[in-house]
Amino acid sequence: MQKVCNRRLVQKLCKSEIGLKAVQIVCKLFRHFWPADSPPTPHRRHTHGNILARKAFTISIPSEENVRQVDYFGLVSGRTVDKFAATKLTPVRSDHVDAPYVKEFSLIVECKLAHVIELGLHTQFVGEVMDVKAEDSVMAKGGLLEIAKIKPLVFAPDTQAYYGIGHFVGQAFSVGKGI
Amino acid sequence: MQKVCNRRLVQKLCKSEIGLKAVQIVCKLFRHFWPADSPPTPHRRHTHGNILARKAFTISIPSEENVRQVDYFGLVSGRTVDKFAATKLTPVRSDHVDAPYVKEFSLIVECKLAHVIELGLHTQFVGEVMDVKAEDSVMAKGGLLEIAKIKPLVFAPDTQAYYGIGHFVGQAFSVGKGI
Repeated sequence: MQKVCNRRLVQKLCKSEIGLKAVQIVCKLFRHFWPADSPPTPHRRHTHGNILARKAFTISIPSEENVRQVDYFGLVSGRTVDKFAATKLTPVRSDHVDAPYVKEFSLIVECKLAHVIELGLHTQFVGEVMDVKAEDSVMAKGGLLEIAKIKPLVFAPDTQAYYGIGHFVGQAFSVGKGI
Repeated sequence: MQKVCNRRLVQKLCKSEIGLKAVQIVCKLFRHFWPADSPPTPHRRHTHGNILARKAFTISIPSEENVRQVDYFGLVSGRTVDKFAATKLTPVRSDHVDAPYVKEFSLIVECKLAHVIELGLHTQFVGEVMDVKAEDSVMAKGGLLEIAKIKPLVFAPDTQAYYGIGHFVGQAFSVGKGI
């Protein structure tokens, strides 16, 4: 597990804005796929109470091969089932916050709870990123995270289906220059 | 353009929680790909002032074939360039809020500004979904949105690249039942 950036680095990146945005987007794209620690969360969920009590959560990004484990996490409640034991996944104590992450997953984001926004039946939790860690196997040259190697799941809510990441379409801040 | 759900329907869906979550996830997955009206937004952006002034924004979801236009929107500022004219896209007056949507894009979400959260250099805007509209061409049987037909872009922030949606991996709330 390689340290991608710690809080200090995140703060430094924030000054250029691009770094913060990158981290934020990673969180947004993926935070639905590890229900144990991901916002937004219905009030009735066990997770909801955990985040408020610990004032922290982690985002552990699974890959396509974890799809059965990910789905299982959405099917049962942590109140009645030890999800880690049932899925043969390993909880690891975080370095910076009071919430576990998943050892077997390739990309980890540790967050301190920063804002709590009530949205009716759901609560939106906004976290301050304290640390980002990634396996060497999902890094591209130059220490960048390579989404094609992470192979995250995309959830299609209407048809309730999981999809993979597809083909490269274009380079950002570049492909539009011809207009 | 077919009406997927109006505010009343969204509220009804909220009672089952699943509906609200579906709409929320759609917003989260895609709101980065139409910078003109999408949160979170750096303070310096023209968009930032527009959202605060109108207390509204829309999320217009482009497809892979719009990648050059989408990228162009991130390269220039609405302060100095008429982005709609340059990209040959058509602004349409929304039915429920004071913000335009993009006629050529297949999925439209109209939002009333509900919460404004300051996150340092960025502001997080949370909207109440007032209306969702979709082209017939992106609907599956039963009036469901079909992500494989929408063909949204996935942005990989670290490598600054756009990807498509890949293959079907599994059925949610089902594939994990065997564990």
